Amino acid sequence: MSLSSERDKKMVLEQFFKPNSIAIIGASRDESKVGQVILKNLIEGGFEGKLYPINPYADFILSLRCYKSVLDISNTVDLAIIAVPSEKTLAVIEACGKKGITHVLVVTAGFREVGNITLEEDLVKLLKKYKMRMIGPNVLGVYNAYAKLDTLFLPRERLRRPEKGFISFVCQSGAIGSAMLDKLAKEGYGFSKFVSYGNNTDVDESDLIAYLGDDEETKVICMYIEGVKDGKKFFDTAKAVARKKPLIVVKGGVTEGSSKSVMSHTGSLAGSFAVYRGIFKQCGIVQAATLEELFDFAMIFEKGWKPNGRRIQIITNGGGYGVLCSDEVVEMGLPLAKLSEKTKKELKQQLPATTTIGNPIDLVGDADTPRYMKTIHACLADDNIDILLVVALFQTPLLESDLVDKIIEINKQRIKPIIMVSTGSDYCERLIMKLQRNDVPCYNYPDEAVKAIKALLEKYNM
Amino acid sequence: MSLSSERDKKMVLEQFFKPNSIAIIGASRDESKVGQVILKNLIEGGFEGKLYPINPYADFILSLRCYKSVLDISNTVDLAIIAVPSEKTLAVIEACGKKGITHVLVVTAGFREVGNITLEEDLVKLLKKYKMRMIGPNVLGVYNAYAKLDTLFLPRERLRRPEKGFISFVCQSGAIGSAMLDKLAKEGYGFSKFVSYGNNTDVDESDLIAYLGDDEETKVICMYIEGVKDGKKFFDTAKAVARKKPLIVVKGGVTEGSSKSVMSHTGSLAGSFAVYRGIFKQCGIVQAATLEELFDFAMIFEKGWKPNGRRIQIITNGGGYGVLCSDEVVEMGLPLAKLSEKTKKELKQQLPATTTIGNPIDLVGDADTPRYMKTIHACLADDNIDILLVVALFQTPLLESDLVDKIIEINKQRIKPIIMVSTGSDYCERLIMKLQRNDVPCYNYPDEAVKAIKALLEKYNM
Repeated sequence: MSLSSERDKKMVLEQFFKPNSIAIIGASRDESKVGQVILKNLIEGGFEGKLYPINPYADFILSLRCYKSVLDISNTVDLAIIAVPSEKTLAVIEACGKKGITHVLVVTAGFREVGNITLEEDLVKLLKKYKMRMIGPNVLGVYNAYAKLDTLFLPRERLRRPEKGFISFVCQSGAIGSAMLDKLAKEGYGFSKFVSYGNNTDVDESDLIAYLGDDEETKVICMYIEGVKDGKKFFDTAKAVARKKPLIVVKGGVTEGSSKSVMSHTGSLAGSFAVYRGIFKQCGIVQAATLEELFDFAMIFEKGWKPNGRRIQIITNGGGYGVLCSDEVVEMGLPLAKLSEKTKKELKQQLPATTTIGNPIDLVGDADTPRYMKTIHACLADDNIDILLVVALFQTPLLESDLVDKIIEINKQRIKPIIMVSTGSDYCERLIMKLQRNDVPCYNYPDEAVKAIKALLEKYNM
Repeated sequence: MSLSSERDKKMVLEQFFKPNSIAIIGASRDESKVGQVILKNLIEGGFEGKLYPINPYADFILSLRCYKSVLDISNTVDLAIIAVPSEKTLAVIEACGKKGITHVLVVTAGFREVGNITLEEDLVKLLKKYKMRMIGPNVLGVYNAYAKLDTLFLPRERLRRPEKGFISFVCQSGAIGSAMLDKLAKEGYGFSKFVSYGNNTDVDESDLIAYLGDDEETKVICMYIEGVKDGKKFFDTAKAVARKKPLIVVKGGVTEGSSKSVMSHTGSLAGSFAVYRGIFKQCGIVQAATLEELFDFAMIFEKGWKPNGRRIQIITNGGGYGVLCSDEVVEMGLPLAKLSEKTKKELKQQLPATTTIGNPIDLVGDADTPRYMKTIHACLADDNIDILLVVALFQTPLLESDLVDKIIEINKQRIKPIIMVSTGSDYCERLIMKLQRNDVPCYNYPDEAVKAIKALLEKYNM
């Protein structure tokens, strides 16, 4: 493929993620209607381009001048978001075509997924006639933290939006997408782009990951898919993308029984999971078994680490956590690092007699920040160690929050991956959030952290 | 064993969990010291009995009159909490013995777990001499939500305390105990009793589960153990207890490598995991692989359900969640329920055409409370269904929070287990919390819910 056509392909999708002007067709004066929620979220999200609400019966919506049709807008429109009832979709898309709008995002449901195949076929004909590209129908929308673009039709008081980061999420299910964005926003995850692509009638999952593969604001791509539209296309695209950056996938509809629910959900054929599993492996896709795993993995991949080796050193202030970490490391088939004699000697001089210098290094319950930092520095300098797994339980009174600042600082030198584990509620959550937002992955439980390390190592065949 | 000796045994431990008067030996004027934190937490926790701070150099601590020694107290003392340096432990315990105190909780560390075996042996001799019972040394303490007893030496602003409930937690690791209590308190878990038993030198894990097995305020016992003190005693006790109520265990130190860290943590021999696994099974213990699983399971067991059968009906407002739920049900080897013709017909009349009536029942994104409740009522009445797995994603604008109230209400009739799944942050977390606090188990993810259902069914050989 020539360079120019590569760039063309990228440009085709760019307008969905970075439009300068948007028409919201079906914008409503009724605050409970999707058409108003979308407009409101675009405004509240701080979108800096032009917004054109379209509604034949209103003059103003949310203080913005309203148009009867896109044909009444004199300027160009980069993207039309369509939130009218399904039976009106064709007419408004026809108007878009006449206006010369090339990109439409169809939120409206009621097409193939409910058996309305003719309507979806007519929709496709219309797209071809006007050479338009479509995401949808039956989608939640697009979110781009960098362009302040938020077309999601769920209210902000119910769905917290994540801050800027480098994870992008391509999700066939709007429900999974919205629930996860909401939850992860609170856990300190940073997102770049999110897209729910529903029935994937025109722009499909392969187009989207190809775009994100070239997107500099995306360091890791997460996917939830039930089925793919074009197997060969997905295989080729995923393989190429996975060479550029980590691509992590959860596949829904893995059993014969559940395949049936996929059909009525997004109208896809779920296909045999065994077949998918094999294809994923050949493509270099990282496979996650659950939604939790998907984002546990994303957290570590987002940081862009490629470790020098597999040897893990555990540091903890809680003995039981040390035990559970080493259990998990051994069970995952990973090696526990062996401290060099030099490090042992050095730590013996510096740490109190109550500590245990081995693997785990147990700094015990009265550990403070200096005790942690001496140990971390020694382990970063020890050639016998590739990865540091640091448990910090902040419930103990002597461990101050400056440990977090010190770890963030040393982590900036990018000597070795430092993966943290911390469990707790309010006080602890604030510290975990700070770590996450500052490039240090922090997990709630030992098994989550070790599984993520394992996924990272496997990705690099280590 | 005779009834009276059964009662005697219970009474022996009762004083640790329900003392009327407590001496805090090592109470300190320094707010950073364990001896003050314990006293402060007892006061702030609302303990209603007598508190006697013991410190030879202070007249008052936290406005309470201070004693130079327990021997200066004229009233009886039910429990002594000991938080002095290890070298002073024997002397203060000797004083307790002379005073006639029969129960001591030794927070102090620095005994067998750091190789100080002689000191621990001397401690045991002293206990025998005065016929005293001890929890410890090297423990975090005891928490009893019903008696407002909180001896944990971690500050309340760092470790949130859980509300009253029916889960009790026996934990060999203080760090795991404290981190989990803190985290679970925020997730709406209710606890009855918590005890960290450290080196289990006198009162051991078997004594504790025997006590909790007879405790009416405990409906499910959770354990984290690294090793047991007396294998035969544990086997007999666990078997008897597991017949009375669910006993769920996470075993730390499952691999050869990690067994070493157990030795330096609580001085226990970890033993072969295979041996433990076999013993656990014979005892009727529910085995959990991780801390998350331990409490995922506890949540469902706490509600006391014994289902009539295994057939699970999924109800959802998010198609993708329906797919993931049915994936998990099928993968766990559980049967998806088949709606009766009557229910199908009834639902077809009552639900909009966009919904899918099958398994899952997909109520789609615009589902509101009445749509959910019609469906739940129909499924509760359908003899083809044993368990309801209800996903409610509250990000959608039309689903009001009264769904939670309605489900809590219908759940009180105890017709069939209703297990919920909901994912999200602030808005959603409040609703999940409300469900949890009102007897409806609610999980964040499909796999967590289905694994818990599986554990419940297995416990009853279903």
